Amino acid sequence: MPGRTIGRRGGGAPIAILTDFGYRDHYVGAMKGAIASIAPGAQLIDITHGVPPQSIAAGAIALAQSWRYFPARTIFLVVVDPGVGTARRAIAVETRTGARFVGPDNGVLAPALEDAGPARAVELNAVRYRRAQVSATFHGRDIFAPAAAHLWRGVRLEALGKVIRDGLTPLNLPQAREGVDELRGEILYVDG
Amino acid sequence: MPGRTIGRRGGGAPIAILTDFGYRDHYVGAMKGAIASIAPGAQLIDITHGVPPQSIAAGAIALAQSWRYFPARTIFLVVVDPGVGTARRAIAVETRTGARFVGPDNGVLAPALEDAGPARAVELNAVRYRRAQVSATFHGRDIFAPAAAHLWRGVRLEALGKVIRDGLTPLNLPQAREGVDELRGEILYVDG
Amino acid sequence: MPGRTIGRRGGGAPIAILTDFGYRDHYVGAMKGAIASIAPGAQLIDITHGVPPQSIAAGAIALAQSWRYFPARTIFLVVVDPGVGTARRAIAVETRTGARFVGPDNGVLAPALEDAGPARAVELNAVRYRRAQVSATFHGRDIFAPAAAHLWRGVRLEALGKVIRDGLTPLNLPQAREGVDELRGEILYVDG
Repeated sequence: MPGRTIGRRGGGAPIAILTDFGYRDHYVGAMKGAIASIAPGAQLIDITHGVPPQSIAAGAIALAQSWRYFPARTIFLVVVDPGVGTARRAIAVETRTGARFVGPDNGVLAPALEDAGPARAVELNAVRYRRAQVSATFHGRDIFAPAAAHLWRGVRLEALGKVIRDGLTPLNLPQAREGVDELRGEILYVDG
Repeated sequence: MPGRTIGRRGGGAPIAILTDFGYRDHYVGAMKGAIASIAPGAQLIDITHGVPPQSIAAGAIALAQSWRYFPARTIFLVVVDPGVGTARRAIAVETRTGARFVGPDNGVLAPALEDAGPARAVELNAVRYRRAQVSATFHGRDIFAPAAAHLWRGVRLEALGKVIRDGLTPLNLPQAREGVDELRGEILYVDG
Repeated sequence: MPGRTIGRRGGGAPIAILTDFGYRDHYVGAMKGAIASIAPGAQLIDITHGVPPQSIAAGAIALAQSWRYFPARTIFLVVVDPGVGTARRAIAVETRTGARFVGPDNGVLAPALEDAGPARAVELNAVRYRRAQVSATFHGRDIFAPAAAHLWRGVRLEALGKVIRDGLTPLNLPQAREGVDELRGEILYVDG
């Protein structure tokens, strides 16, 4: 069973969820089921699941624009993860504001972390806090959701895996290029 | 008022909702309002409302792929119901895993029930556990949501209606047909 | 801190949310974060966020068709607000049924209020119950959500602003026009 629970579980803070899974399939539902199985009673708030598929930049912008409006101790579960199944790290980060962030180390968390001030980060490799069988393609359900749920229950960040001492991956934005009489760039995000 | 409540209401388990109502209209909202009116405090988790309209097969697949990730005593409220207003039965089923399923008896529950092991099924015909006026076209709000909410409060399955002794309707999948040098089938579901 | 809390916060009733923000962006998420920051523990239920952008008539219809299925003391937070940043009033209304409504005074609440019987209305101009900085374009997050959250906590309606003594804005529906052998109108809403 998970580690000690400190005070009221979750401290009253919600788990806020941001993905690129869309609304058509059952993936968000399965992920929420996985959370509820570990952390019954946790309030789950959707930020959006409409991030354009695999757009790390759009996910990063949506997170950076919304995280500060949530309660101080909110746990942000962010799954925009084109590198699922590759060597990219799965991480959880505590920040100086108290907010916690769980997601892939691919830059999607970077702008929000820069605002919030990262304090400690771990790689999510403690097998006891993952799902027993981890699928190759659905780390949202099998790694990230369990980590967020265990944090909510009061498990310490360091229990979730190895402390990260080198830096986290920054958000890699495509650069605009200057040409003769023109500036070429890429549209990252169009506001609805 | 509904029957006895055993222990903590809902036992801490959520009501998980799966429909083909889409996200544009207020139907999911009205259904959730109906639940909250009977079972205030029940946690409502959306699996998805993006099942292609009236696609029993797609709804069945989404449910079969997600139900096992939810807490053991979850109540699944499934409304993909092209036969609303016809003679198809409205049912609630308890399974050997503890999961409960509420929906139309048209096959949408069948693959999940096969996994979970159905133990007892009833037809939702007890008028005291339906909405006073049942509309001809919105059984989600008037029959299925109230049944799920009353179950959550601790009403016994058998109080919701007549025990079903003949079998439930299986999922009727279109069969692939073999031709000369070809195999013709129908695409049931495309993953987002 | 906000005014007195009477009895159990929120009286067990949810905050039901209806907007035209869509599902692609983080706006609904930011608004819910703002609510959770003021009213942790409030149950948030989405009616829909798929109202066609800026369609006051479609939002009014969705609200009028769904509000009565919610618990009696529900707080309805309605943001379909093409006039954000103009002189249109931001209001909160208590009704004879007990339901409370928060939104712009542009007609979107009018049909539901007519059904529920408005009892008292205020303009949301008390600065202590708004966000410290109010953006010009996101009153949903900075004015309406905080008002709904404070009401849920038990703040009295009159504390939120000046009592409105002249009437509220009615829903202005385009009129059908009779021609020779024809009737010309405008489609307001097509059911999904």
